[in-house]
Amino acid sequence: MSIERVREFLDSGKPGFMKLMGFRLGDYSADKVEGFVEVRPDLSNRGGVMHGGAIMAMADTLGGAGTIANLPEGARTVTIESKTNFFAAIPVGDTARGEATPLHRGRTTMVWQTKITRSDGRLAALVTQTQLVIEPKV
Amino acid sequence: MSIERVREFLDSGKPGFMKLMGFRLGDYSADKVEGFVEVRPDLSNRGGVMHGGAIMAMADTLGGAGTIANLPEGARTVTIESKTNFFAAIPVGDTARGEATPLHRGRTTMVWQTKITRSDGRLAALVTQTQLVIEPKV
Amino acid sequence: MSIERVREFLDSGKPGFMKLMGFRLGDYSADKVEGFVEVRPDLSNRGGVMHGGAIMAMADTLGGAGTIANLPEGARTVTIESKTNFFAAIPVGDTARGEATPLHRGRTTMVWQTKITRSDGRLAALVTQTQLVIEPKV
Amino acid sequence: MSIERVREFLDSGKPGFMKLMGFRLGDYSADKVEGFVEVRPDLSNRGGVMHGGAIMAMADTLGGAGTIANLPEGARTVTIESKTNFFAAIPVGDTARGEATPLHRGRTTMVWQTKITRSDGRLAALVTQTQLVIEPKV
Repeated sequence: MSIERVREFLDSGKPGFMKLMGFRLGDYSADKVEGFVEVRPDLSNRGGVMHGGAIMAMADTLGGAGTIANLPEGARTVTIESKTNFFAAIPVGDTARGEATPLHRGRTTMVWQTKITRSDGRLAALVTQTQLVIEPKV
Repeated sequence: MSIERVREFLDSGKPGFMKLMGFRLGDYSADKVEGFVEVRPDLSNRGGVMHGGAIMAMADTLGGAGTIANLPEGARTVTIESKTNFFAAIPVGDTARGEATPLHRGRTTMVWQTKITRSDGRLAALVTQTQLVIEPKV
Repeated sequence: MSIERVREFLDSGKPGFMKLMGFRLGDYSADKVEGFVEVRPDLSNRGGVMHGGAIMAMADTLGGAGTIANLPEGARTVTIESKTNFFAAIPVGDTARGEATPLHRGRTTMVWQTKITRSDGRLAALVTQTQLVIEPKV
Repeated sequence: MSIERVREFLDSGKPGFMKLMGFRLGDYSADKVEGFVEVRPDLSNRGGVMHGGAIMAMADTLGGAGTIANLPEGARTVTIESKTNFFAAIPVGDTARGEATPLHRGRTTMVWQTKITRSDGRLAALVTQTQLVIEPKV
C-alpha cells in the first residue's frame, strides 16, 4: 500500500477513530511519520489533560502508517504489541505532536518508536510498538 | 476519591474521552472494574475493526478507576506506563468488554491488568499498566 | 521439537545460561511450564536480592519452552519482546518458582505469561513475552 | 550513592550476578552508562546465541547504575518494570555492548533506555525500564 493511499485515507474525513480525534497527518515518508492532535476537551481525562488512551491511539496510527510505507507489495500489517511510558501531561488546548521512526524493519515484524511531545517541546510519552507483516497468500 | 465520585464522573456525560468513545462503566469495586464500548464505525481503523488505540484507552480508564478505588484519602494517581498485547480484532458492531483486576496494590504504585474481550468471549487484548500513587502534600 | 528434547537439553548440564544459573525444570506440558532457581549469592544484585535480570532470564526460558511444546513439526521460535513488572524482592537463600501459561497460541506468534513467586507464595514478578514462530523453509 | 561506589562494587569482583556474567563497566556518568559482556558459551541459549535473559540482565544493571548516578543523597532505587524488544541474535564469541541513556529523571521515577549492540554495530535489543526513587525516611 502506498503512502499516497494511507494519506488519502487519513485526510479523507471518512469515519474512523483518527477522524473522531481530529488527527492530522504531517510529514510522511518511509523513514519518519509525523502527526498532530489538538487536545480538545473531549479528548481529556478526569484530570483535565489529554487522556493517555488518546496519546496511545495517535502513536498507534503513526507506527502503523510507518510500517505501511515499508511493506512489500500486497502485504498488510497489524499491531501485535505496544508499550508506552508517560512522562508529562498534555493540557487541554495544547497540540500533541507525534513522530514515529523505525527501530527495526524486518520481513516478519517492524518495530517503531513514537515520541509524543507538547508544544513546549517537552517529551510527554514514548511508545514502542511491534507490527506484524502479513504477506499475501500465494 | 470514592468509587461513587468516579462513577458519577464517568456516568455524567461531561465532555471527556470516555464520553466521546461511548464508554459505559459496569461493575465497579476495589477488586474489579468492568466497562463496555460499542464498536461504532468512528472507533475503527483502516481495517474496519476497533482501533488499537480505542482498546488501550478503555483499558487505561479501567485500570485508573481500579486504582482510584484503592487510594488513601486525598491521594491521586497517574498512569506511568502501559503495555498491551493484541490477540484478535474486534469488528465494528461488536461490543468490547473490559475487566480490570489488580496485580499489585502498594503504597507507591499499583499495577492493574485488563482483559478486553469480544462478545464471543475471545480475548482480544491484554493490558498491564502501572499507576503512580501521589500522596497529598502535608 | 518435542518436550522430551527440551527437557533433555535443560537437564543435560550442557553449558548454557540456565546451567550457569542453576535452573531446574519442573512440570512441563504444552499448557504449563514450571521451573525453579535457588537464589545463590552469585545471582544477586547490589541490594542482596535476586537480580532482576536473573528473574527475567528464567521467565524467558520458561516462555520459550512453553512455545516449543506447541510448535508445528520443524518450526523453531525466538523471543521478540518481553515485558516484566516487578512486585517484590526475592532474598538470597530463597527459591524462585516460575510458572508459564499461554495467553495466545497462534500460527505466527505465541504469547506466554510467567509468574515468578517466592517460597512464601508472594508474587515477585510477572513477565509477558511474545515468541515468533518460524516455519521451516519449504 | 556516588558513581565511585557503584563502580567500586561492579569492579570489585564481589559475588553477584554481574560478576557471574563477566560484566565489565565502561564509561559511566550521570548522562550515560556503558558496559560490556563477552558472550561465553555459558551465557548462551539452546540456539547457541546470547540468552535473552543475559541481555536483559546487563541492561537492567546499566539502567540501574544510571539512576543511581542521579539519585538525591540517601535515596535508593529499584526497577519496577522493564520492556525489551529483540532485533538480532548475538553469537557466542562476540562482545555485547550496552549503552544506557535517560528518558526521564524525575523525583519519583527515572526511565532509562539501553541499546545493546553487537560488535558489528547492529542493534540487538532495546530495553526501556522504570526505576522507582525511594527517598530515605525522615
